[in-house]
Amino acid sequence: MHRLHLIKPDGRSLWLYSRSPLPASLTAPASGSQPASPDSHLRWHPLRGEWVAYASHRQHRTFLPPPEWNPLAPMTDPAVPTELPAGPWEAAVFENLFPTLSGRAGPPPPSIVETRPGHGACEVVVFTQDPSTSLGRLPLDRVALVLDVWADRCEELGRRDDVAYVFPFENRGVEVGVTLHHPHGQIYAYPFVPPVAARELEQQAAFHEREGRGLLQDLLERELDDGERRVIYRGRHAVALVPVCARYPYEVWIAPLRAAPALPDLTAEERLDVARALKTVLLKYDALWQRPFPYILVVHQAPTDGRPHPEAHVHIEIYPAYRMPGRLKYLAGSEVGAGVFTADTLPEEKARELQAVEVSLD
Amino acid sequence: MHRLHLIKPDGRSLWLYSRSPLPASLTAPASGSQPASPDSHLRWHPLRGEWVAYASHRQHRTFLPPPEWNPLAPMTDPAVPTELPAGPWEAAVFENLFPTLSGRAGPPPPSIVETRPGHGACEVVVFTQDPSTSLGRLPLDRVALVLDVWADRCEELGRRDDVAYVFPFENRGVEVGVTLHHPHGQIYAYPFVPPVAARELEQQAAFHEREGRGLLQDLLERELDDGERRVIYRGRHAVALVPVCARYPYEVWIAPLRAAPALPDLTAEERLDVARALKTVLLKYDALWQRPFPYILVVHQAPTDGRPHPEAHVHIEIYPAYRMPGRLKYLAGSEVGAGVFTADTLPEEKARELQAVEVSLD
Repeated sequence: MHRLHLIKPDGRSLWLYSRSPLPASLTAPASGSQPASPDSHLRWHPLRGEWVAYASHRQHRTFLPPPEWNPLAPMTDPAVPTELPAGPWEAAVFENLFPTLSGRAGPPPPSIVETRPGHGACEVVVFTQDPSTSLGRLPLDRVALVLDVWADRCEELGRRDDVAYVFPFENRGVEVGVTLHHPHGQIYAYPFVPPVAARELEQQAAFHEREGRGLLQDLLERELDDGERRVIYRGRHAVALVPVCARYPYEVWIAPLRAAPALPDLTAEERLDVARALKTVLLKYDALWQRPFPYILVVHQAPTDGRPHPEAHVHIEIYPAYRMPGRLKYLAGSEVGAGVFTADTLPEEKARELQAVEVSLD
Repeated sequence: MHRLHLIKPDGRSLWLYSRSPLPASLTAPASGSQPASPDSHLRWHPLRGEWVAYASHRQHRTFLPPPEWNPLAPMTDPAVPTELPAGPWEAAVFENLFPTLSGRAGPPPPSIVETRPGHGACEVVVFTQDPSTSLGRLPLDRVALVLDVWADRCEELGRRDDVAYVFPFENRGVEVGVTLHHPHGQIYAYPFVPPVAARELEQQAAFHEREGRGLLQDLLERELDDGERRVIYRGRHAVALVPVCARYPYEVWIAPLRAAPALPDLTAEERLDVARALKTVLLKYDALWQRPFPYILVVHQAPTDGRPHPEAHVHIEIYPAYRMPGRLKYLAGSEVGAGVFTADTLPEEKARELQAVEVSLD
């Protein structure tokens, strides 16, 4: 993988990626507006024991582009500024113009609860130059490139002192609030280990302490031994399945079979097989009802505190928005207020539906 | 408060409530269909360390009522069965026909993770006979009656061996998945302390251990001392405010000033003032944009394990669906996959908007 690091006129970083060498002559375009001075800060939620992020500069975005304007397209007309240059790049990452978390965040305002600056990073990951495709429809090697890009950013962000946890994710579809349809995801680099990751790591650490092996590895082995009832993809190095304890209908996890703690720890072969698993699942989702299948895709991995995390096992979790065609899965009282997910369908049934969908990776 | 306990022909319980005596001649109508034998079960989610509830009988609901049919209306025509009799009741509670949790749940199917029967209860709370009003638009004494009904059910459900935590809530509006518009809420009685409540109780217990007083009480006092910048209602016994650490725009908490552990512990005077705070907030919500304001309303209180919970402080949390007119607050990657809420607006700004709305409780 080749990478070119550029600095935009407004000071933000841009990284271009390709399997082929990138011309050093490429330059980063200016964006359409000046980035606000980030006033992001974090406040401690005493009852939940978690940080909440506030970034009120985000509501003062002054740049109002026409609806057909695509800031993630390569810039071909100087009159229509975008975030990315024309050129032979295959994937790109840049710092969000209005970040929720930023290394440049100033001191927090005084408060009656503990506060801290909204340090960290918010980056946009552009999966392709083609605005009309999707992550799952990229060629296999290009899906693998996205995983390589994530790993590269995780490694670099993880080295920063103000970053404790790197979190790549993709929100796909208007149903989950996406307004920009060019295939892209995001990376949040938090200055703390976020609550969901912390909880998973706690459970994993307790199991590892007791059993001397990984909790997710143990669960994956049970899944594979259970007649593969919920398995959607099984390769040499990776597996995709509807977990036995799925909280969302059609929820899928994708994991390397080996308990690698984080994306940068995966070998090229493992990453390729994870890409194959991911592409298989995303194509099955879209084929299931012959329409784009909205979801939230997240990567869970080890924190970047420099300590070893033998308990961590990197994996992707995908939470689909629908429970049946046209019927959203709402998060209501029980899910949001108590934290108890309730499902009308069994993971085995949803897995069978996905298993029955034929897709080709070629 | 007067209460009449009836048994429906299908075996489910129905409780009718009123401030005036109820005629003993009232009978509980049969429902339009037979309740399915509940196959609810719980599966342990090893990574998150939480239970997930599965109730696949819920998808086999056979009764397809016409769209104009309101099962929560009093039954006046035997040809159009509803859940409730005609009569002078003011509020009512009945066991959900297709419960996610039920004392009658059978043994769970075998699984590769720990399982248990989906014991507990799911009840529907009908706030009024009037299908066209809302909780906030009920007269003050009737809002207080709803609190009394919740307290009554919390007490009775809390005595059951298969119930560890009683959770009254209201989902309001199609935006949070509601299909039935008659004013009503629900009560889930869980056989375990749900994760959100468990987390809050942990934080509260640690503070109480250290400081000898309540965590929420401490926070409320700080809020009141902070120039009441975020306070929406302040009465003799209760307060409503946008908490300094609000996760949702327009999020409001309502609490008694005294750290009573649970709804049944509140005095009649306290309950009336909580009702006044609640009615004030709900009227302000609807008046803000002159349209019904969708939300999820939940009650957090002490578990019902029979032990004292001096750390617990009962309160209502309301999570509105919108962040501005027509713009939903989506829970996406950061919120759902990492557990980190990100806000574009400050709690102080949203509180000012709600403070500026004039409402009358008369």
